[in-house]
Amino acid sequence: MADPIITLTTDFGSSVHLVGSMKGVILNINPAARIVDINHNVTPFDILDGALSIANACRYFPPRTIHLVIVDPGVGTQRRPLLVSGEKHYFIAPDNGVLSMVFEKESCTVRHITSDHYFLNPVSPTFHGRDIFAPTAAWLAKAFQTEAFGDEITDYVRFTMPKAKPSGQAVKGVVLRVDAFGNLMTNLTEEDVPAAAVSSGTIKLTVNGKQIQKFVRTFGSGAPGEPVALFGSAGFLEIAVNRGNAARTLVVNRGAEVTLDLS
Amino acid sequence: MADPIITLTTDFGSSVHLVGSMKGVILNINPAARIVDINHNVTPFDILDGALSIANACRYFPPRTIHLVIVDPGVGTQRRPLLVSGEKHYFIAPDNGVLSMVFEKESCTVRHITSDHYFLNPVSPTFHGRDIFAPTAAWLAKAFQTEAFGDEITDYVRFTMPKAKPSGQAVKGVVLRVDAFGNLMTNLTEEDVPAAAVSSGTIKLTVNGKQIQKFVRTFGSGAPGEPVALFGSAGFLEIAVNRGNAARTLVVNRGAEVTLDLS
Amino acid sequence: MADPIITLTTDFGSSVHLVGSMKGVILNINPAARIVDINHNVTPFDILDGALSIANACRYFPPRTIHLVIVDPGVGTQRRPLLVSGEKHYFIAPDNGVLSMVFEKESCTVRHITSDHYFLNPVSPTFHGRDIFAPTAAWLAKAFQTEAFGDEITDYVRFTMPKAKPSGQAVKGVVLRVDAFGNLMTNLTEEDVPAAAVSSGTIKLTVNGKQIQKFVRTFGSGAPGEPVALFGSAGFLEIAVNRGNAARTLVVNRGAEVTLDLS
Repeated sequence: MADPIITLTTDFGSSVHLVGSMKGVILNINPAARIVDINHNVTPFDILDGALSIANACRYFPPRTIHLVIVDPGVGTQRRPLLVSGEKHYFIAPDNGVLSMVFEKESCTVRHITSDHYFLNPVSPTFHGRDIFAPTAAWLAKAFQTEAFGDEITDYVRFTMPKAKPSGQAVKGVVLRVDAFGNLMTNLTEEDVPAAAVSSGTIKLTVNGKQIQKFVRTFGSGAPGEPVALFGSAGFLEIAVNRGNAARTLVVNRGAEVTLDLS
Repeated sequence: MADPIITLTTDFGSSVHLVGSMKGVILNINPAARIVDINHNVTPFDILDGALSIANACRYFPPRTIHLVIVDPGVGTQRRPLLVSGEKHYFIAPDNGVLSMVFEKESCTVRHITSDHYFLNPVSPTFHGRDIFAPTAAWLAKAFQTEAFGDEITDYVRFTMPKAKPSGQAVKGVVLRVDAFGNLMTNLTEEDVPAAAVSSGTIKLTVNGKQIQKFVRTFGSGAPGEPVALFGSAGFLEIAVNRGNAARTLVVNRGAEVTLDLS
Repeated sequence: MADPIITLTTDFGSSVHLVGSMKGVILNINPAARIVDINHNVTPFDILDGALSIANACRYFPPRTIHLVIVDPGVGTQRRPLLVSGEKHYFIAPDNGVLSMVFEKESCTVRHITSDHYFLNPVSPTFHGRDIFAPTAAWLAKAFQTEAFGDEITDYVRFTMPKAKPSGQAVKGVVLRVDAFGNLMTNLTEEDVPAAAVSSGTIKLTVNGKQIQKFVRTFGSGAPGEPVALFGSAGFLEIAVNRGNAARTLVVNRGAEVTLDLS
């Protein structure tokens, strides 16, 4: 059997040693573990942003991968630590909804992690990533006996992803995320966009009072400086500028309203 | 025996290939090495910041881990390259004090690395991380024969961490570091904070003319927008804002003076 | 034989899960692969910056390393995916010139990747890194049979690196890159700089109307605040400030003209 894989998704940023400490804990318990960074720059405290990161990346990993997801503004409070067995993977995360998009996509068994003999001792009330979540992942990767870590629960936290909504002759959505290129990822999906727009290459999209009229297939298709709409690799409608930055060109950030005119 | 682990802590930032070059050098010499990034965003040239990173993260790694610490404003000058054997780990770093907090915590044997047949040839005067430190780590990870790399020395550089100081009815400290959440880590420790503050949940802390009055256990305990004090996972008193950014709320940066009123 | 190494160089930035998805794809196809990050903060769309990153880092890796280089503004358009066999390494990248500096340095065989049974299915028109390049690397790392991936071509894209040019009694060059320390890497090489400047420690360099007069060997040699010139570890002339930031001190960015007076 191949060495077990443990992935890390956090909002710890890249300028502190916190992620390094977690890696040390994992390797100290389970030297065979292979640690893979997914994203340490989730927007601080932003559970939706963390949910998007893990839900989009996790499906590409091999079966039995263990995904650690530490976006945890409630660390040290009553919120529970969870161990989730999905259809192919395991997830370890705080019980705050950060796995909501995983729950939407696959059937899961959820356990409340209570077996504290696996934890570091003492447990810091401010760093469960290091003292509870990392050791649980490292021990799980030895024998994959999920039942050893705690009992099943069903009342875990999950939120519904913000969906685009019809509004008269239009659909109203929102910008979920801005990537490193300045592309605006909206929550509009292929179901929201008329087939005629896709086939004709024209769309009526408005964000921050500006019109996007061209629908294309690739980031390289628009004229320089021209904002275009296209379906991104996560399945959502995105607004982009060829070799430019749509967020800056349109002066738009995360949370901005997007209107798709269907008339 | 498990494959040897080599960790990297540098101030090279994340937008250059320099760290990549070091990884290549290590794997070329020792293909079995497992490389783990701790932090590449140490504040440039900041030896104290590097010292904090490695001293806080190193202890969680397995025995025999080799920690490379390259914060090296004096690269190419007379400062010596060091190989340090601590109680459980090895450290390879320039002789500029970046290991001071390690020296404080454990008993160490320190060698001046002089065996230049292990170095890349030629050695660039501007990149010893690649040409001296990385190859030394890779060769050390083969047989852990520290005496092969140079003679023991005792006159290595070490500085004393800036400690909080009594001042009348108060203790004066300093903000050592600001993390990705905007939390302010001070140099005040559990010894500096009266037990009454901890048990009552009230404290009299001043930074940049602003008062912090609430002492809590977790980042999630304060009211939104309210700055609170708590002990962080590295054992220092921190100032935080629940789901907010204390550095921005208080307009405070690294180096700011902190006063704890004991009256 | 040691486990195969696959390196990653992209302009995806560090705040998205895109790199994580590529790692998952690689490990799912080839669990033995060892993935090494070189640089994910190539300036977005900047093929020259990507070319500099990979050409400077690749040579330090062991023979048979596979280098994935995804700076790909034309993703989904007619530009071809390439598999390049260099003298010691393999390179997988879009056909847009990002391997130009590799082509300059070594003799290469270049193939157009067409064997789409290795690709993920379906292929997103916006993320070939995940759906074409990563799977090709993972499959290549199994048996290194380059001919299985497509036919040889010779009309691949390559550009000539911008070279410094003589201009009367001077040589005119350009700032190619600014690193995390604010050091300015120019395209002037050892051949452009008179031996007398190197031996005397004096040089006549102008950038943004400011004079640099001191030539040194190490970053630690200049007086505090004083801009100096030196040869960096990639073989280019750099402008630096000892424990300072030359880009900020001189108010200079990438692309700025540099004049070396030879009179």
